[in-house]
Amino acid sequence: MTRKNPPINPNFPTLWHGGDYNPEQWPRATWDEDMEYMRLAGVNTATLGVFSWVSLEPEEGVFTFDWLDEAIDLLHRNQIHVVLATPSAAPPAWMAKKYPEILRVGPDRVRRLHGNRVNFNWASILYREKAAEMAERLALRYGKHPALALWHVSNEYGGRDYSEESRIAFIEWLRNRYSGQLSELNDAYWTTFWGHTYTDWDQIEIPGEPYSEEAIHGLTLDWKRFSSQQILDFYLNESEPLRRITPDIPITTNMMGTYDPLDSWKWKDHVDVFSWDSYPAFAQRPIAIDDWVKTAFTHDLNRSFLDKPFLLIESTPGASNWYSRMRVKRPGMHRLESMQAIAHGSEGVMYFQWRQSRGSSEKFHGAVVSHAGGPGTRVFEDVAEVGRDLHDLTDLVGQCQSPEVAVIYDWENAWALGDSKGPVLGDKQYFGTVLAHYRGFWEQSIACAVLDSVQPLDGYRVVVAPMLYMLKPGVAERLTEFVKAGGTLVTTYLTGIVNESDLAFQRDKHWPLEELLGIFTEEIDALYPEESVNVSVDLGQGEKTYKSGTFCDLISLRGAESLGEYAGEFYHGKPFLTRNRIGKGEAWYIAARTDQRFLYDFYKEMASKLGLEKSIDSETPDGVMAVKRGGRTFLMNFNNELRSFAHRGKVISLAPYDCVVETADVFAVAR
Amino acid sequence: MTRKNPPINPNFPTLWHGGDYNPEQWPRATWDEDMEYMRLAGVNTATLGVFSWVSLEPEEGVFTFDWLDEAIDLLHRNQIHVVLATPSAAPPAWMAKKYPEILRVGPDRVRRLHGNRVNFNWASILYREKAAEMAERLALRYGKHPALALWHVSNEYGGRDYSEESRIAFIEWLRNRYSGQLSELNDAYWTTFWGHTYTDWDQIEIPGEPYSEEAIHGLTLDWKRFSSQQILDFYLNESEPLRRITPDIPITTNMMGTYDPLDSWKWKDHVDVFSWDSYPAFAQRPIAIDDWVKTAFTHDLNRSFLDKPFLLIESTPGASNWYSRMRVKRPGMHRLESMQAIAHGSEGVMYFQWRQSRGSSEKFHGAVVSHAGGPGTRVFEDVAEVGRDLHDLTDLVGQCQSPEVAVIYDWENAWALGDSKGPVLGDKQYFGTVLAHYRGFWEQSIACAVLDSVQPLDGYRVVVAPMLYMLKPGVAERLTEFVKAGGTLVTTYLTGIVNESDLAFQRDKHWPLEELLGIFTEEIDALYPEESVNVSVDLGQGEKTYKSGTFCDLISLRGAESLGEYAGEFYHGKPFLTRNRIGKGEAWYIAARTDQRFLYDFYKEMASKLGLEKSIDSETPDGVMAVKRGGRTFLMNFNNELRSFAHRGKVISLAPYDCVVETADVFAVAR
Amino acid sequence: MTRKNPPINPNFPTLWHGGDYNPEQWPRATWDEDMEYMRLAGVNTATLGVFSWVSLEPEEGVFTFDWLDEAIDLLHRNQIHVVLATPSAAPPAWMAKKYPEILRVGPDRVRRLHGNRVNFNWASILYREKAAEMAERLALRYGKHPALALWHVSNEYGGRDYSEESRIAFIEWLRNRYSGQLSELNDAYWTTFWGHTYTDWDQIEIPGEPYSEEAIHGLTLDWKRFSSQQILDFYLNESEPLRRITPDIPITTNMMGTYDPLDSWKWKDHVDVFSWDSYPAFAQRPIAIDDWVKTAFTHDLNRSFLDKPFLLIESTPGASNWYSRMRVKRPGMHRLESMQAIAHGSEGVMYFQWRQSRGSSEKFHGAVVSHAGGPGTRVFEDVAEVGRDLHDLTDLVGQCQSPEVAVIYDWENAWALGDSKGPVLGDKQYFGTVLAHYRGFWEQSIACAVLDSVQPLDGYRVVVAPMLYMLKPGVAERLTEFVKAGGTLVTTYLTGIVNESDLAFQRDKHWPLEELLGIFTEEIDALYPEESVNVSVDLGQGEKTYKSGTFCDLISLRGAESLGEYAGEFYHGKPFLTRNRIGKGEAWYIAARTDQRFLYDFYKEMASKLGLEKSIDSETPDGVMAVKRGGRTFLMNFNNELRSFAHRGKVISLAPYDCVVETADVFAVAR
Repeated sequence: MTRKNPPINPNFPTLWHGGDYNPEQWPRATWDEDMEYMRLAGVNTATLGVFSWVSLEPEEGVFTFDWLDEAIDLLHRNQIHVVLATPSAAPPAWMAKKYPEILRVGPDRVRRLHGNRVNFNWASILYREKAAEMAERLALRYGKHPALALWHVSNEYGGRDYSEESRIAFIEWLRNRYSGQLSELNDAYWTTFWGHTYTDWDQIEIPGEPYSEEAIHGLTLDWKRFSSQQILDFYLNESEPLRRITPDIPITTNMMGTYDPLDSWKWKDHVDVFSWDSYPAFAQRPIAIDDWVKTAFTHDLNRSFLDKPFLLIESTPGASNWYSRMRVKRPGMHRLESMQAIAHGSEGVMYFQWRQSRGSSEKFHGAVVSHAGGPGTRVFEDVAEVGRDLHDLTDLVGQCQSPEVAVIYDWENAWALGDSKGPVLGDKQYFGTVLAHYRGFWEQSIACAVLDSVQPLDGYRVVVAPMLYMLKPGVAERLTEFVKAGGTLVTTYLTGIVNESDLAFQRDKHWPLEELLGIFTEEIDALYPEESVNVSVDLGQGEKTYKSGTFCDLISLRGAESLGEYAGEFYHGKPFLTRNRIGKGEAWYIAARTDQRFLYDFYKEMASKLGLEKSIDSETPDGVMAVKRGGRTFLMNFNNELRSFAHRGKVISLAPYDCVVETADVFAVAR
Repeated sequence: MTRKNPPINPNFPTLWHGGDYNPEQWPRATWDEDMEYMRLAGVNTATLGVFSWVSLEPEEGVFTFDWLDEAIDLLHRNQIHVVLATPSAAPPAWMAKKYPEILRVGPDRVRRLHGNRVNFNWASILYREKAAEMAERLALRYGKHPALALWHVSNEYGGRDYSEESRIAFIEWLRNRYSGQLSELNDAYWTTFWGHTYTDWDQIEIPGEPYSEEAIHGLTLDWKRFSSQQILDFYLNESEPLRRITPDIPITTNMMGTYDPLDSWKWKDHVDVFSWDSYPAFAQRPIAIDDWVKTAFTHDLNRSFLDKPFLLIESTPGASNWYSRMRVKRPGMHRLESMQAIAHGSEGVMYFQWRQSRGSSEKFHGAVVSHAGGPGTRVFEDVAEVGRDLHDLTDLVGQCQSPEVAVIYDWENAWALGDSKGPVLGDKQYFGTVLAHYRGFWEQSIACAVLDSVQPLDGYRVVVAPMLYMLKPGVAERLTEFVKAGGTLVTTYLTGIVNESDLAFQRDKHWPLEELLGIFTEEIDALYPEESVNVSVDLGQGEKTYKSGTFCDLISLRGAESLGEYAGEFYHGKPFLTRNRIGKGEAWYIAARTDQRFLYDFYKEMASKLGLEKSIDSETPDGVMAVKRGGRTFLMNFNNELRSFAHRGKVISLAPYDCVVETADVFAVAR
Repeated sequence: MTRKNPPINPNFPTLWHGGDYNPEQWPRATWDEDMEYMRLAGVNTATLGVFSWVSLEPEEGVFTFDWLDEAIDLLHRNQIHVVLATPSAAPPAWMAKKYPEILRVGPDRVRRLHGNRVNFNWASILYREKAAEMAERLALRYGKHPALALWHVSNEYGGRDYSEESRIAFIEWLRNRYSGQLSELNDAYWTTFWGHTYTDWDQIEIPGEPYSEEAIHGLTLDWKRFSSQQILDFYLNESEPLRRITPDIPITTNMMGTYDPLDSWKWKDHVDVFSWDSYPAFAQRPIAIDDWVKTAFTHDLNRSFLDKPFLLIESTPGASNWYSRMRVKRPGMHRLESMQAIAHGSEGVMYFQWRQSRGSSEKFHGAVVSHAGGPGTRVFEDVAEVGRDLHDLTDLVGQCQSPEVAVIYDWENAWALGDSKGPVLGDKQYFGTVLAHYRGFWEQSIACAVLDSVQPLDGYRVVVAPMLYMLKPGVAERLTEFVKAGGTLVTTYLTGIVNESDLAFQRDKHWPLEELLGIFTEEIDALYPEESVNVSVDLGQGEKTYKSGTFCDLISLRGAESLGEYAGEFYHGKPFLTRNRIGKGEAWYIAARTDQRFLYDFYKEMASKLGLEKSIDSETPDGVMAVKRGGRTFLMNFNNELRSFAHRGKVISLAPYDCVVETADVFAVAR
């Protein structure tokens, strides 16, 4: 099912194509060549000013907007609309020299020297003022320019700051969170352990190696919550003048998918369109279906934030220069990457950057116009082809999928799991596990939403919540309601271990999931990579054996039925897969981590029983799947080899990295 | 042979069973459940107050002992005696904030923020005063309480401090060591090398990367000596009020086996019972006989310090949360681990901790009462079984083995070897090599003592001193006497290289071991891991070939006879194994590192010739061995599989991880 | 062809044999033993005073030269001449304590404590004065001593300093480089990228992780240029009194081959003889032909600096103690290493150090007189044999090769390539690639010079410039001239990418190598280690297939002809090997990195076509090759096995690590 939304900006109702354009790096003569080349590449959008602070204010209070005036006018004359950035990601060197307090302090409590990007102290009052003032100037000067389509606030907000100013702000935030009651905080953090009880707010230090402890996991969790919130506060301050002066111009900030420090869900009420920078590794690795799945997932996440189309605001037509090898894109790959974004709901395809820098750290990073030139080069012609495709797909503007399946990925859960010492040290692969479950649907061309654990679940038929270690208030209740009302829930080992403060539930006294799941977990056996335990499962097609490992819950039944058991180790015969029928629905528990083959079989059986909607009727080969958007279906081959399959009596063949776009009824019956 | 010693505390003449109990972490209602559960688990001992400083003194000079009064009384009423800790391992946050000088300074000369444990400056006068004052208060308040069984001073003393105060203390210590003569220090350190001669005491810096040099190995060695001594001084200061006020209450501090920074032998005259915290990896690794051997070795070390029983004061009934995988204990494993400790001389089995924390960094660490509850869980029932076993073995209290074999493990030797640059960089595996030799006896059920190089050797028939790189004053003489008097000495490559200042002997002028060993070492060939040289040896059962590598000494005979030679490389035919008959004894030299198979054959032949006492008459399968204590013998199967063998015409079978305890005469003839 | 030069010092016209001698470490009695042993070892040279500052000035202004007077006199009486060092590598501890500003500041902007070596601040005015003053005292006191043969200024100059003083000096250097125009610097660094434009010189920070950025590659490059120049300035200041007071005594400083921070070519006009410290890994690794090739290359580099003999001023007769394993030299190896140095143009063989230290960090490092003693030990006798050999080769003094082939290795190119992010991250193996090409000649016994990219090319017939990423001003022109005049040039992928500021050429507008090479590079495909692409080449012996990978340029022909093509990937059929005939010569381009086999075939064919001079007429087995010097040819077997081959109808056999020295006509016809 798909729905129609308004365009990002009603004045520019096309799929956008273009990217970061930095005319201030080039002589004026090059600008004219740029206009000509943009026309040839089918570019209709240019992002300006992302790092331009020093070019706009070369010394304090001295402003030089002329070049930007000229650039915007020139683009406008060439029918190219403008995404205009505020430049706070790049505080000028003069400002850092004059006001060192604006600079970032690292976890080692040492202030960084000026350099790189997003290198400022989130808590600096001065920097917040400066950033808002610059935003105001831009809004006043360009707010009414007919080329202005979207505000791009700052750039890839990120990192955490460990300055004394941030420590004070953190303590203030904690005071609010714990109603000014230090005893509440002590209880929430279980500080009696190792005798770390605070007797004054000022005793609280920012956690962070190497000088501060990371042993109080409630504290590390709150620190991550605070840091994400601090970035949002910075954003709200910086975007305030834009919202005030130009209420009709939509606002975004370019995010980075599941980037750990920034819980994007918290931005939901504060941006008009979500946008993200996608630099997948698939061109960089010989075999990389995984990376295509991860990109699909992240597109779906971006679409799910506001349940409407998003914008792929940065990508590269060449190779990214931070991968260990700059393997160039194989023929077809750039178009496939672009079409995948559109299929999943992007309102355009945009690049960083238009013209490859001659110097500095990203001079090898792929660009539309490279050191070898523009038109005639393979990369440029790939871009021009996408330009033509986007033009042909204008009817998709505003169209949006409405999936039946929701997969839960939760930032706070990721933080708590990441910090917890045990049952496995280091990466517990939460994200990878969520992706593995997501892939169970992707392989079947079934659309998914991606939500965090506190979003409403109305309208979904299936909710998958792997490794939902932390149960925030109300979550157990909401999941129970969802199932009772007829929904199907799937969850796994390591679910329901702690509350929102990372305090373990005393499961013998009360476990919030016991009624819902109908089981009880006594122990978790954590196995080494070289170990595995067979599990034996009957999903309705006879008994099959799979391998499990890493995490093996030792559970007993308290109402659920077992559909699969361990077939090894001292817990031979104990349940591995359980189903609890409760109300009109079913709650499944997968007690151990398995190989992808089990998830494939499990979700295939589930989709078949529930009759979940697929974007293509037929079974497709590995790495070939379809996505529906509006009246179109995108059939994509993510393999570097030709793939063929039978569909409605005919053979469909797709070249390596090919994408076929057809009206939706060619592949599936409309629902 | 075994001997009888008095119990740790004559008022509590049982094997102790219990562990760290932190009632201050829990609501009062939980305490009653604790008492009930302790009864069910056969617990008779509880350790209190280990990290409780802030709970006892929430602000400076304000004391809150009520909860502790109540807890001790409650335990007493429940027939549980108390091990009471001084809380210096956990300086309160308020103290760190008020007096930052109490905080630890790292090797990077940066003062740590408050957090973690044992995070204080060893040289802080203020902290020493505070720690002693708190100990005094505890002694005055609880010294006469009938439940008080043992003082537990601080917790896992460890680490080194790099503060200016410690630097000054270090210089003072050096002045004493070198009789106030800087020239003596310069000579001892060979400072003329690279022109590092000191011309004033104050020029001496604490060695330590990244900012200070580690190139003067005499200095790094003295720094380690000083740091260990500094901890002892701290301990003496902290325990002084306890000794003074409660002369009848024994004192211990929980140590960590062969933990590098603390030379435990120096505590010999200062604790009443040695105790240690054992967290072996054997549950955490699929195959781990090595770890059982290492645990046996460390038990033997703890028994050898005072040649009497020790106390296993911490262990876990579950899994340790700092291993990469929290693999749960397999059935039988917890009982086997506990019985092994008792067999080697422990006066009890104690756990950290009684009840699993709900929060903070060790919330997953195994505990008697877990997040899943107490009675009925597998872990709790395992503990209760050990409780019953301990009760049945009360006759073992005070019983102690008297081995015929002494294995040398020497902290100062470990420090000097560890720092030396060459003949191999990085870990020279001193500890691993000592364990490999120890295992030669362990496999034969032959009891060993573990000594450092300056302990008396009276009463031993065999002394094994692998890699005894450093010869402290008198050691060569004492070893020579031991052999002349009829003893058998085994030593190896990398022995007798330097004196107590890490100054190499000029072997062409005088080598202290030449008379004893009857050989001369000209070169040491250090081979890469992928290289090996065969050696050909006749131990009396015909010529056999083994692999050697890593270290291959090129030696010539100066009185000894060769019983094995290299069979490869350009030193083909040179001696590999030599024996020197001197006086009534024999001194053996193994010139190269070998595989375990050689050590097995070598020590088997030796035990047979010398008729060394074994705890079981028969040959046992790999990983099955026996230990005798008092009138009992513990026969243990450390394999995860059933093992059977013939003994006196019968077949004995042991289940995986089984331990059979019988009166000693069942397995061996009394001697 | 070889030429005759004057000896290093006409008063000592022999091949020098000896090394670092530190009598101040030893009691006076040992000195007499040293004299006797030196006589037995054929030693005629001793280096004194390398780290002796504190022994010469134990407190400020108090001098103790007596011991040095006595040592020099003693050596002189024993017919041993002296290389006398200035001691600046070892600032005394008293000086560091009194004047902390002399100490080195690291990239973390933290001042180091006293210790190790060369641990001073290059920019410290005080330290420069002190060093020059000490040099002046030495020159005045020993300048006329008849034993004085050579000044050895400081020791292994190295590292970079990040102090504020160095920052100021760096900015001053930048002002000069950019004519005082900040805009020139901004343009050269492309600082508009990420908005890093400087608006004041003082905003410039020294680049360096972890606190400063390394993203401006023009800046990191200039920082490396400056740091190398700063060392040269230090050297010039320190050596000035020597030059002034003793104009007849030659000066050197011991360098470390291709050690990254110090661009040795810049010393060309400032030392009288180049000398270097060679500690190859070949004794330390089981199989190590590579290391012998690398050593040969570095000898050739040292000979090429001044196109005359150099001095092997440090090496070890034993094993180096900083390798992971101190594998001792196999029989023959020490003589072979020494003869290789002589063959390539060394005027002697010298060791660090004469007598093994008893203490400190290098006490295991190989020395002539070891802990096991002198005469009679294997190491000592190896040294004595070399002493006799050197005596027999006195006619070679001053003799020097004149190769027909020049291989380019360029420090600034290495710096720029090393910092560049992409097309491959991390080590791009520039040095390894240059060595691989060099080896193509080495295997054929063809002598090579090693030059940087700005040296004159007169007299060479072949120039090989692999990965010449950076084209400094005039280089493209000079290479073009060289080819037009009849030369043969070979270059490769990753050549001609940036100018001297690390700014990429916009190749579509103008590429400086297009005329010379007759090709155009559109893209560079960077492949993963596990990937490869076949190439198919016809070098005149029929088509052969090789493997390429890592870097694969996608080029098209613009005048050149293709002699080989890719046989895989989507660029199947595109040129891999091209030749451009221009003027009287040929310019070759190898578009992808290949295995050694291709380079072997390629250079063999080239040598044959051009008739390049070889030191031996016949083909030799792998790892056997010949080098000619003066009237002698050194035929060397670098294998640990016997090798035989036919030469002029006879069979020549060489034992493992053997070196045969014959008059040149035995192996090749004179030219």
